[in-house]
Amino acid sequence: MTSPLSPSSIKAAIIGASGYTGEETVRLLLRHPRVEIVALGADRKAGLPYGAVYPHLDGRGLPDLCALEDIDFTTIDVAFCCLPHGTTQQVVADLFARYPRLKIVDLSADFRLRDGDLYATWYGHPHQALELQKEAVYGLSEFSRDALKSARLVACPGCYPTSALLPLLPLVGRGLIDDGSVIIDAKTGATGGGRSAKENLLHGEMGEGLSAYAIAHHRHAPEMEQALSQVANAPLTVTFTPHLAPMSRGILATIYATLGEGETPQSVHEALTEHYRGEPFVRVLPWGAPPPATQHVRGSNYVHIAVFADRKEGRVIIVSVIDNLVKGSSGQAVQNMNVMYGFDETEGLMQAPLFP
Amino acid sequence: MTSPLSPSSIKAAIIGASGYTGEETVRLLLRHPRVEIVALGADRKAGLPYGAVYPHLDGRGLPDLCALEDIDFTTIDVAFCCLPHGTTQQVVADLFARYPRLKIVDLSADFRLRDGDLYATWYGHPHQALELQKEAVYGLSEFSRDALKSARLVACPGCYPTSALLPLLPLVGRGLIDDGSVIIDAKTGATGGGRSAKENLLHGEMGEGLSAYAIAHHRHAPEMEQALSQVANAPLTVTFTPHLAPMSRGILATIYATLGEGETPQSVHEALTEHYRGEPFVRVLPWGAPPPATQHVRGSNYVHIAVFADRKEGRVIIVSVIDNLVKGSSGQAVQNMNVMYGFDETEGLMQAPLFP
Amino acid sequence: MTSPLSPSSIKAAIIGASGYTGEETVRLLLRHPRVEIVALGADRKAGLPYGAVYPHLDGRGLPDLCALEDIDFTTIDVAFCCLPHGTTQQVVADLFARYPRLKIVDLSADFRLRDGDLYATWYGHPHQALELQKEAVYGLSEFSRDALKSARLVACPGCYPTSALLPLLPLVGRGLIDDGSVIIDAKTGATGGGRSAKENLLHGEMGEGLSAYAIAHHRHAPEMEQALSQVANAPLTVTFTPHLAPMSRGILATIYATLGEGETPQSVHEALTEHYRGEPFVRVLPWGAPPPATQHVRGSNYVHIAVFADRKEGRVIIVSVIDNLVKGSSGQAVQNMNVMYGFDETEGLMQAPLFP
Amino acid sequence: MTSPLSPSSIKAAIIGASGYTGEETVRLLLRHPRVEIVALGADRKAGLPYGAVYPHLDGRGLPDLCALEDIDFTTIDVAFCCLPHGTTQQVVADLFARYPRLKIVDLSADFRLRDGDLYATWYGHPHQALELQKEAVYGLSEFSRDALKSARLVACPGCYPTSALLPLLPLVGRGLIDDGSVIIDAKTGATGGGRSAKENLLHGEMGEGLSAYAIAHHRHAPEMEQALSQVANAPLTVTFTPHLAPMSRGILATIYATLGEGETPQSVHEALTEHYRGEPFVRVLPWGAPPPATQHVRGSNYVHIAVFADRKEGRVIIVSVIDNLVKGSSGQAVQNMNVMYGFDETEGLMQAPLFP
Repeated sequence: MTSPLSPSSIKAAIIGASGYTGEETVRLLLRHPRVEIVALGADRKAGLPYGAVYPHLDGRGLPDLCALEDIDFTTIDVAFCCLPHGTTQQVVADLFARYPRLKIVDLSADFRLRDGDLYATWYGHPHQALELQKEAVYGLSEFSRDALKSARLVACPGCYPTSALLPLLPLVGRGLIDDGSVIIDAKTGATGGGRSAKENLLHGEMGEGLSAYAIAHHRHAPEMEQALSQVANAPLTVTFTPHLAPMSRGILATIYATLGEGETPQSVHEALTEHYRGEPFVRVLPWGAPPPATQHVRGSNYVHIAVFADRKEGRVIIVSVIDNLVKGSSGQAVQNMNVMYGFDETEGLMQAPLFP
Repeated sequence: MTSPLSPSSIKAAIIGASGYTGEETVRLLLRHPRVEIVALGADRKAGLPYGAVYPHLDGRGLPDLCALEDIDFTTIDVAFCCLPHGTTQQVVADLFARYPRLKIVDLSADFRLRDGDLYATWYGHPHQALELQKEAVYGLSEFSRDALKSARLVACPGCYPTSALLPLLPLVGRGLIDDGSVIIDAKTGATGGGRSAKENLLHGEMGEGLSAYAIAHHRHAPEMEQALSQVANAPLTVTFTPHLAPMSRGILATIYATLGEGETPQSVHEALTEHYRGEPFVRVLPWGAPPPATQHVRGSNYVHIAVFADRKEGRVIIVSVIDNLVKGSSGQAVQNMNVMYGFDETEGLMQAPLFP
Repeated sequence: MTSPLSPSSIKAAIIGASGYTGEETVRLLLRHPRVEIVALGADRKAGLPYGAVYPHLDGRGLPDLCALEDIDFTTIDVAFCCLPHGTTQQVVADLFARYPRLKIVDLSADFRLRDGDLYATWYGHPHQALELQKEAVYGLSEFSRDALKSARLVACPGCYPTSALLPLLPLVGRGLIDDGSVIIDAKTGATGGGRSAKENLLHGEMGEGLSAYAIAHHRHAPEMEQALSQVANAPLTVTFTPHLAPMSRGILATIYATLGEGETPQSVHEALTEHYRGEPFVRVLPWGAPPPATQHVRGSNYVHIAVFADRKEGRVIIVSVIDNLVKGSSGQAVQNMNVMYGFDETEGLMQAPLFP
Repeated sequence: MTSPLSPSSIKAAIIGASGYTGEETVRLLLRHPRVEIVALGADRKAGLPYGAVYPHLDGRGLPDLCALEDIDFTTIDVAFCCLPHGTTQQVVADLFARYPRLKIVDLSADFRLRDGDLYATWYGHPHQALELQKEAVYGLSEFSRDALKSARLVACPGCYPTSALLPLLPLVGRGLIDDGSVIIDAKTGATGGGRSAKENLLHGEMGEGLSAYAIAHHRHAPEMEQALSQVANAPLTVTFTPHLAPMSRGILATIYATLGEGETPQSVHEALTEHYRGEPFVRVLPWGAPPPATQHVRGSNYVHIAVFADRKEGRVIIVSVIDNLVKGSSGQAVQNMNVMYGFDETEGLMQAPLFP
């Protein structure tokens, strides 16, 4: 329920509105009853109507695209920052310097890692806004509600970490699974690579086949480890292999783990079911249900999680699916904003998945 | 705007709820503020929870599937009939016989053709409910509002006819194009063939190629001709070629026509623009805009129409796109229901398209 | 049959070997018993092994990529030129200036139009090698055999023209169809746009929908018109609309035409069947056969053509399918080379299509 | 090299020629210089020309489909049996009873498991030809050459086992990896499910998403375990999760394992490289090469294998790709036949992969 103390409506800017996560944030906010989109930033496309970059949203009364520097943030409550990683940190620092009352929901990777050294190791350059890096709330909505309520800066989790942490966080640290045994084999679609024109994302290249990539060096691995290590109270390394499948949206993560002492696949299933009871977007499928499919959450903010007994004694297999552009980025960003402003957490996010 | 005389809410049954048009009707009605889904009929799947046939809609509080004969229609206002053609006519006749106050929105082909002989010729057997065939309102929403308001039985147009008639009806008969010159080259995706397991709709068969089918003998041709002949005040034959493309949803119709005396592609464009000004779902793209794409209406009730000058003097090319499962079937069905009950015509239908 | 006067084997260079038509030429020549690939030119990728740009052809003993200027053409018999249009003409002129005995099979658009003014109109700049433009043989293999035997420079037809001209050339000019009535509605896949990274060819953009493009201004239209006007002995304009479908390979052209005086769809079918009797790559499907599908020629040099009676008196519908990268470019290039050297015309080209 | 003792050519029948593995066997044998296809069996389609079920192979001079009982096996050397599992065993037993000199290459699952009880457990009924089950040679070509040379009945491995056993067999048992640690996360396309019309294989269902299936109970698991246990000299259980991706062909297997004592990912890579040196179809990619993609082996008999160091100490990640219809079934079947008859093992199988 929306809090009686919440504002009746707020004004939002989307920065980086010409990319896929920008567009998806626009799509969702368009149907949000308490948010008015007042600015759409995209430096290289400044001046164009939004319908020129996204014809499917033409005619919706959206503002034209404009340069970041032309946005008047004095009247804006919240900015969704959908810029590429690396450039975001300076933009955010500048915005806070000039508009201290602004709230920022960042969809980039810039504020996800809390440790400056870790950031520098994985991203190849020192972080430009270390104070903000520490301040940022890691916005995995289901685990960050208290911190989100007073947050000024939210770092939305990566798409892969969202798909893996939702099933894993309730298990790791409670001894339900062996912290060191986790293998995450994840598959995503084309939009995971963004809208910039790259050869490997051409339909001709990826349209009719499946490949693995960034094996053992994807930047979402340390992000998962940071969150898992925290609940485990111990440093932890995950095995993580991303794959690119010939589809537009969706992540399916197949997770393998050794059971904790005395645990069974059924006890893992019960713990997850119990943990997520009442959560609006997380569905733990009944024991024995058919395995999840990305088609079943397409275009929606839902997560489906299923637990299976391996034939191998002492092992459990967990499968989770999300839409990488919704729960994996823009949907979760809106969900976080709802929590920040005391809105009903599901506001603007109850669309059913689009299947077929 | 919703009429003040409208009921605050109505109860709906979906018959044939396990097929794609049934599912899509459910998806849309789930978000409709004035409709309560009280029964889901599917004889062969009776007893199953809806989530067992459509996992993406699990957990939405929907009734279980049941046999048609087990539905108590005395408390139901409107039935959406999503059964295969041929069997529908008897079902509808029986329902009206038993429940004279019921309203039925039929998504099958059974009541689209008004002439019994024409029906028998194209469908290979005599119509079983000739009186109802005559009574049914052909529900191309934008052209049937008055009739819809008092309709008891609505025959929703086929997906191809919807894509072709929306651009053509305002042009034919006014002399803007030559009635006899119309060629409709249409392309659709897999869901146009329904959910029943047929070899030609397997991913392995159609997944990576494009084919034509039913050339010069598709049943949607006489349906288009019936509507066009009526406005032309003369019998008229169209050339119609459907194609199957490797995608799930969407129809793109490329229409070729000879211009009427004194007309130009621009005058055709202006006429369409003028005709559809203010229509919530029909967008006539500005002259010179990029050509329409099915991606731009996916999952939505929108129609995009664009007009182009052919290099050949005296010819115009018109392209229209719809989502075959929404404006091409279930979305238009809900739109028709909105008109029938005096609801705001856009109620439940304002979702933005899902792109990418 | 290979002529007894033919060389037992020849040496070939592929220039522009990093693009799709370059790759496809390599793939086909690898299995050609009379051709040795001795150089692979790609200025921007010079120095890389071929497997670095096309891993599926790694380990085949191919030469590394090199800069054009580093290729020693003195020992090379034939060069396949797979460069972008516009730049090709100067390259070809330079090569002939330095290596007068070289033969060149050009897959670009540069030498397809025979008229300098027409070229300038459609390509926006004057042609840089007017003499060669006149000399080049337009290599639609089935119609150019005599000229090919002594050709030094062959301009391979565009992919769309190949799909349309094969059914149309035998009909136009003989009065079988009305020259002025031709409408070509063609659909292609992603590789028609080449391998360069463009936003509109990303899987995320085009992967799950279908669009029209370049309506009434595609450069393949004047190419078709040049060939058709020649057989018609009169200037002729075609209506041509290309579409982009979510698949990698394939063109399906749906052609509409008014029948000539006294002709019937059956007489058109007979004429095509008769015309192509004995042709190794052109299959005119039997009357009444299922419509062609691009899946049925995928990866092969075949053309399938089918003829249908329209319901509209006096009209015929013709559907043809090719693989745009084989018969639509590299396969036809190899076929032309076979004719030029007196090899059996099917040498290296008899692979069965890959279906499913 | 083909043995001088080999027959110059042999006559083959394909039984079950209307399914995908039947078709693929036909496609490959059509280009095999030493095999003549003399009969194509398909009981339910008997009497049809082959082009009626596979239009892409029309016009190739193939015999019409016929009933099994109408095939005269007295003149046939080898039968490729492409029937569904379960029915195959009786057919094979009958054929051997009547034609003792016949050789049979079976592509079904019926003779893969050597143990009658294991078969009964996984397939739900007792094996009908226990003697043949014991006699059958498990035809993973690279590991079965000696046995194949004198084999009368060959059981071709399943597609998943082929993709997993090729990388795993040289490692397990030599202590390079821990036998008990193996996890195989595999992804396949639509044709893995065959050509029979099933709802879950419709394009509308699977076309734009990815799902897991048969988790921990796929029948290919015991097949892998049988082969691995044999080299390990100890019973061994693998964790195996298959997935369905929206593509037609291809398997990508991502394999996780704990390194054996003193081993490193590099030593694993070296062992595989060494083991497969000189193998015509198995390519172990160089250390550091980009990860394999199913696109790179599409339509071909190749296997690409790559080895990666996990970030987690002591773990190795191996990725292998095959075309499920070629090396995963019909290609390997032909390869086995080549070995059986002393033909060059690559005869008929050297087509380059089809990419893009």
